[in-house]
Order: sequence, then C-alpha cells, then structure tokens
Amino acid sequence: MNVILLSPNDLLANTRACIKNPRQLEHIKNIHGAVLGDQLKVGLIGGNLGTGLITELNDDAIYLDIDLHQPPPPALPLTLVLGLPRPKMMRRILQTIATLGVKELHLINSYRVEKSYWQTPFLEEQAVYEQLILGLEQGCDTQLPNVHLHKRFKPFVEDELPTIIANTRALVAHPYTAIACPSQIDYALSLAVGPEGGFIPYEIDLLEKCGFEAVHLGERIMRVETAVPYLLGRLF
Amino acid sequence: MNVILLSPNDLLANTRACIKNPRQLEHIKNIHGAVLGDQLKVGLIGGNLGTGLITELNDDAIYLDIDLHQPPPPALPLTLVLGLPRPKMMRRILQTIATLGVKELHLINSYRVEKSYWQTPFLEEQAVYEQLILGLEQGCDTQLPNVHLHKRFKPFVEDELPTIIANTRALVAHPYTAIACPSQIDYALSLAVGPEGGFIPYEIDLLEKCGFEAVHLGERIMRVETAVPYLLGRLF
Repeated sequence: MNVILLSPNDLLANTRACIKNPRQLEHIKNIHGAVLGDQLKVGLIGGNLGTGLITELNDDAIYLDIDLHQPPPPALPLTLVLGLPRPKMMRRILQTIATLGVKELHLINSYRVEKSYWQTPFLEEQAVYEQLILGLEQGCDTQLPNVHLHKRFKPFVEDELPTIIANTRALVAHPYTAIACPSQIDYALSLAVGPEGGFIPYEIDLLEKCGFEAVHLGERIMRVETAVPYLLGRLF
Repeated sequence: MNVILLSPNDLLANTRACIKNPRQLEHIKNIHGAVLGDQLKVGLIGGNLGTGLITELNDDAIYLDIDLHQPPPPALPLTLVLGLPRPKMMRRILQTIATLGVKELHLINSYRVEKSYWQTPFLEEQAVYEQLILGLEQGCDTQLPNVHLHKRFKPFVEDELPTIIANTRALVAHPYTAIACPSQIDYALSLAVGPEGGFIPYEIDLLEKCGFEAVHLGERIMRVETAVPYLLGRLF
C-alpha cells in the first residue's frame, strides 16, 4: 500500500477525511507505525493524489487534514483484450493491470478458456473492485480501470470489437508469426493476448479480419501473468 | 509444460530415452492425451531441443525415439541482482526468470529484506531446481540459470560485485532518480532490483560507487514480480 486511497464516503469536507476501513487502519498503524501528526500519502478514488496529516487517531478511525493537489499518473493509451485467465491468476492479473495504468480491460471467452472459469467468484463486481484497489494502492494511482466481460468470442469480435479498437493500432500477441512486437510506441494501442495455450488459428483469423496484426514475442512462451507486464514494459 | 525436459539419466542412448518422472508421465498422458506414435517436443537439460516419438507407453514409463537437433533459445545478456523476495513470491520469480532466459541470478540481502526470508525451504537447492525446471518447461529452454545467494550486502557489493559486473553496463532500478530506464539495448547488462520497498539510500550509494547507474521506471511503483518481466520486456 504505497498510497492510502480514500473513497468519497471518507470525505467529511474538502480538506477533511475520516478512514474507518479496518484494512487501511491496520496498515497505517502497524505497517507505517503512524502516530498523531504524521503525514501520509493519500489519494481520492477517481480524483487527485496528495497528503493527509493525522489529526486524530483512535481504535476505529483516523482523521486527516487532506491536501489533494497532484493529478494521478497518466493512463496508458491502451485497450487490453485478454482471454479470461484461470481463476487462480485472476486476482493477480487485475492487480497488475491496475498497477501498470491500464484503464480499459476486456476479458473475453476463447476456445482454450475453460467454461468453468466464468463461474469464479473472483469475477463478481465487488471482488474485481477489491483487486483493482489493491493494484492502484501499489501503483500510486487513483483512476479505477473499467473491466468488461464478454462470454461469447465471435459476437464480441464481430459486433463490438471494431468500435472498441477504432482509432488505435491493434496487435494480437501470437507465437506463430514473422513480425516482432514493436517497442516504445507513442500512439493509442489495442492489444489482444490469448489465454494459456494461445488463441486458435480460427480466432487469430477473426481478429485479423477485425483489423488486428499478429506479432510475436520471441521464441519463449510466457504465462499470461508474465506476458502482460513484459508487453507493457516493451510497448510503453 | 511446453517442452518435455529430459535429464541425462533419462537417456538410454543418443537417440533413445525413457521418461519415468511421475509428473511428466501424468502430463504427457492426461494433458497431451498422447498415444503410441505421437511426437512430443522434448529437450535435454543443458543440451538441445528436438522431438521425441513415443514407441512404448505403459503405466510407469514412456519410451521415446529422440532427435535433438535444435539449439535452445539464446540466453539474455544479463546478470540480474535481486533483493531476496518474500518466500511467497520466491517460486514464481524463479520460474519467471527461467522462462525469460535469465542465466545469472544473484539473490542478495538488503536492509528491507526480512531476515526470516533466508530461512525459507524454497531456497534449498532441490526446491530452487524444481522451480527453474518449471520455468524452462514454460519457456521452451534447456539451459538452467545459475542462482547465487549472498546473505551479506556490503561484502558482496564491495568485494564480489565489481568482478561480476565487469564488462557490462550496470543499472539499478530506483524510483528517486531523474534518468529513465533505457530500452531495447544491444549490450551486456547487469541489473539490480531492490526488495519490496526498494533499496535504502545507503545501498544505492554503495551500488553507485560500484559502478551502477540509478534509473527509474516512471511514477508507478511495481511489485518485484511485476517489475522483473516489465524491465526485461523493456530492455531486450
């Protein structure tokens, strides 16, 4: 937790806040070891970053004088389309994309996504929200990513994806292609990454018809949770 | 498991092998659904990649005619120096560096490494080996990384590190510096990444005296397990 994120409910006034979330209280008291008069790095979810001066601290609440003057780091100019990861990895990937500044994430079905993955409680709205907050707290950001679920591949790619990727260059990571993934780009990008085992040729065809270019990442095959930060480090 | 890795003990002759490892048997039979006459992607640990034709398949063993003609993917020209990660992340990081082609990993002590981390069974030789094999199986590589442990920061940095980083450019990832991390380099690199919470100023000073340049990764603070693939995607 590199920043304490306040929700609008925590605000008492423009310059006053009260934290009652037990996870945050525990962290501030036991990890920071904070005491009266200490200054914390804080941010308002959806708003600015800044500082919070502890003016009162008791068992159930911490009161802060806050000064939120600093805009959050810029969002990546990226729309990420991911084959739904296995549930075990879902939480980590949500945290990672929030930490790295992805603001548009589309989780999609694909031939190699097991149907049961769509049943995981980790996809429930509150569970997704909690992981995104953890990722923002790590990355010192306040802007929540938008996470969209698409349970049918073909209708999504044919009917919705063309609008989503409009005015961006669209790439799909695919081991079996001659073109290497570009690096250090300065334009808006849509990036598709398959599930474990990759997209099947039919899916690659459909994505190419939709406007995606297939690019490879070298000879090594990565897990999705490795490929995502690897790609973002390379691209931006 | 994108490649079946044979150990020298599995070889019956130059072109024959017998797999008895229960984890590999289970994977070949149940995940691949392999049958007599199928061809598998195989590699010899420390040797070449190639194919294995199943000539016999029973409950306890699979016999293969092997043809190992393809060299493994090139190693990254990198020496990675990492603050010892927390045990929960140790296995994942070992897998990741093996998948991505790191061949020299130095795990070091640092002010923000908890002493108890050095006691984890995940650092025992056999445990490290198992995770590296999992990483190579993922990345389709045969060359085991060398993992070195250094339990004392100062003697390591002053006495051993100068020799280790000789003839390379040496960088240390550090949020509080003006120089951005370079990208797409084509020279041999030594890269130091601190533990969770980063190196302390005294440690950065000592690394700079040793020849390291501090570089930042932007405003966002990443977990070590995210920073490593992010950095490698950016650098190589």
